[in-house]
Amino acid sequence: MEIKVLEGVFDANEIVAKENRGILDKSGTYMVNMMASPGAGKTSLIVKTLEGLSGDLKSVVIEGDIAGKVDAERVSDTGTEAIQINTGGSCHLEAKQVNTALANLSLEGIGLAIVENVGNLVCPAEFKLGEDLKVMILSAAEGDDKPLKYPLMFSESDVLIVNKIDLIPYTNFNLEKLKETVIKMNPGVTIFEVSCTNGDGISEWVEWLKKRIKG
Amino acid sequence: MEIKVLEGVFDANEIVAKENRGILDKSGTYMVNMMASPGAGKTSLIVKTLEGLSGDLKSVVIEGDIAGKVDAERVSDTGTEAIQINTGGSCHLEAKQVNTALANLSLEGIGLAIVENVGNLVCPAEFKLGEDLKVMILSAAEGDDKPLKYPLMFSESDVLIVNKIDLIPYTNFNLEKLKETVIKMNPGVTIFEVSCTNGDGISEWVEWLKKRIKG
Repeated sequence: MEIKVLEGVFDANEIVAKENRGILDKSGTYMVNMMASPGAGKTSLIVKTLEGLSGDLKSVVIEGDIAGKVDAERVSDTGTEAIQINTGGSCHLEAKQVNTALANLSLEGIGLAIVENVGNLVCPAEFKLGEDLKVMILSAAEGDDKPLKYPLMFSESDVLIVNKIDLIPYTNFNLEKLKETVIKMNPGVTIFEVSCTNGDGISEWVEWLKKRIKG
Repeated sequence: MEIKVLEGVFDANEIVAKENRGILDKSGTYMVNMMASPGAGKTSLIVKTLEGLSGDLKSVVIEGDIAGKVDAERVSDTGTEAIQINTGGSCHLEAKQVNTALANLSLEGIGLAIVENVGNLVCPAEFKLGEDLKVMILSAAEGDDKPLKYPLMFSESDVLIVNKIDLIPYTNFNLEKLKETVIKMNPGVTIFEVSCTNGDGISEWVEWLKKRIKG
């Protein structure tokens, strides 16, 4: 019985995700779904990405949080339009919520929509939103054993961004070990190493994204 | 309809949580529910806590993870009995799973059972397990804005342990600001500041816990 309910939820979600895909294709908007643990640096990376892309294309950001609007305010401060979804207790975004957000945005001339999912390494990996690219961020401070404990997120993501690499010297984080583990689980993954604090690696990620959007 | 299903889930969970409470009361076992984001240091803190308590009382650990058994192995290496629950995709532990674990442990003479919940700041806060104490761990590397984004976890916890305080000098984490925010949301909370890496603050937490267990 319980499994049937879950299948229903996923099936219903997929129908709306396809609808989102249609809306985005019509306006020529590329959509990125950003997922990570709380405090891995999703908002910081989004802000850095927007700064890096600002001369090239117009973006919007869809912020998903249980409560509050601190992230939307941080994005809005960069001059980019942001819309906040409060999930009211739910630990992930679903396609339906993104659908509502898309209906409330003017997508004409918008090249990129970035969705910041709820901070969680579990359920966001299970719900398609209609995105072109699934990006997960891992903070180096979280440790290199995370792929073994949250396998779906690491194997579902197209891109893994290892953030806070400036903290590596003060931890026992082993970057080579992490990359080896992730590539075994997900051979097609593209990995970037960045620090939103000192800017290291950001331009490599932004240039790569730019090519993907145009490609 | 959806809300009714959720209420059903919570009600059913509460019945089993009370059953767990009865089992623990019978054997005189104190139970701690440890919750945190992925990579905040739950397992490290559990290991340090077990070391600190080793001369005083016998403990068991119930490990909750989506997949794998790396945490149970780390605990087992300390000589403490550990049992691993794999939630098979679910982002939190429920009382039922802890009930099964308790049935598979010999609780006679066990003073403390530590439950390591799935790494997640959202749903674990909603499911009672029958615990005496809800402890949440926040890694300083996650940032001081987390209470505003995950309010239920911060307001439901009896204890907040700020871990990785050795990393604070390399981040913009403001400990006073964090404490102010959390105390406003949850005036009864007890806060500890620790580093599992260099051992700072661990003995204060262990001594406090010892008193709570005996009290």
